[in-house]
Amino acid sequence: MTNTTIPITNITAANAPDVLVTHARTHTNIAVLVSGRGSNLQAIIDNIENGYLESANISVVISDIADAYALERAKKHGIDAIFVDPKSFTNKTEYEQELVKILDSYNTDLIVLAGYMRIVGKDMISAYKNKILNIHPTLLPSFPGLHSHKQTLDYGVKVSGCTVHFVDEGMDTGPIILQSCVPVFENDTEDTLSQRILEQEHKIYPQAVKLFIEGKLKVDGRIVRVSK
Amino acid sequence: MTNTTIPITNITAANAPDVLVTHARTHTNIAVLVSGRGSNLQAIIDNIENGYLESANISVVISDIADAYALERAKKHGIDAIFVDPKSFTNKTEYEQELVKILDSYNTDLIVLAGYMRIVGKDMISAYKNKILNIHPTLLPSFPGLHSHKQTLDYGVKVSGCTVHFVDEGMDTGPIILQSCVPVFENDTEDTLSQRILEQEHKIYPQAVKLFIEGKLKVDGRIVRVSK
Repeated sequence: MTNTTIPITNITAANAPDVLVTHARTHTNIAVLVSGRGSNLQAIIDNIENGYLESANISVVISDIADAYALERAKKHGIDAIFVDPKSFTNKTEYEQELVKILDSYNTDLIVLAGYMRIVGKDMISAYKNKILNIHPTLLPSFPGLHSHKQTLDYGVKVSGCTVHFVDEGMDTGPIILQSCVPVFENDTEDTLSQRILEQEHKIYPQAVKLFIEGKLKVDGRIVRVSK
Repeated sequence: MTNTTIPITNITAANAPDVLVTHARTHTNIAVLVSGRGSNLQAIIDNIENGYLESANISVVISDIADAYALERAKKHGIDAIFVDPKSFTNKTEYEQELVKILDSYNTDLIVLAGYMRIVGKDMISAYKNKILNIHPTLLPSFPGLHSHKQTLDYGVKVSGCTVHFVDEGMDTGPIILQSCVPVFENDTEDTLSQRILEQEHKIYPQAVKLFIEGKLKVDGRIVRVSK
């Protein structure tokens, strides 16, 4: 993704790059950051395995929680699974610098947050500008932050949904890539609502990853333009 | 709507009301408040005329703007059309007391705001508690207040919609009755987006009015419960 390639047959003196990349990666290396069960990680794994995300490769799964079930999922699929303990660092900057070191070592093209329960700081964001995706189980900008399903039910909306967005330094405020809506029913609990929204999450998150991989997303201020 | 009726055959000394209402109104008297062209007023008129809102009757249309086109629409359909000039009152309380006097004189059961560009104050709200509906062209709580289409486009959401809600003293904060969503496209202007949302407004506003008329809406804190 990050390399410039020119078909060898078309190389002339005029367009020859400084460094000719003859072995550009054909796969996009995805790192997935998790804190919990990682159902969205599973959705992406499934979509790689079924061919929908054929040019994607999850190179590493990193968790800030030692016993996150998402680490088990990764291992089951032969993916490197790493626990990085935030408590073992003096501050957030050092923790994120360690993450960036790991991400770099995996030649990461795209970072996917899948239930990662920390706000990403400026170190990681500047190292991976417009290369970090998150999904949030509301129609942002409604109900950002924690306890989204409770916020949604307490407010009494009749429509909710989920949002895939690029990550910026705010809390769920980054430019929006895709959204999908679902009805909210009167007898919904946080569980039933979250199940209905998760179904949509598992559809639009792989879709957004695919658009990213295919180079179809362009961030223009707050607007994400999607080319056909 | 507001009268208690007991079928005459079931009247006994024990359940006889203080005043027996033998000629309860069979129609719900709706007052529509407007400031502009009144396309939602037209949608309600159309739905009364086509029988969908068969037990509704628009008894009066009141505008705070002298030349609001909505007043013309009302006259065309033989509906009383009144301009009340807010500038002719010392303050908002006196203005709203005049409105309430007019609304009372029309035996108003339901007030429908259709592009009425003022915040309803506590005098009108307490006189018509849970009897004032508004429609807003976003999925509340996203983008309340003025310039909603511009707010929507500037934020870059991919899904928007409209919301019918009971009016409380906040700015578009009342309990939500119905919501409908529409996609937002990259090349949308305020005009194209507003057209797409208006189509939905003209569907869900009459639906909400029908639910109200049929006594199917119950406000429970922030939640509006809709009975079958």
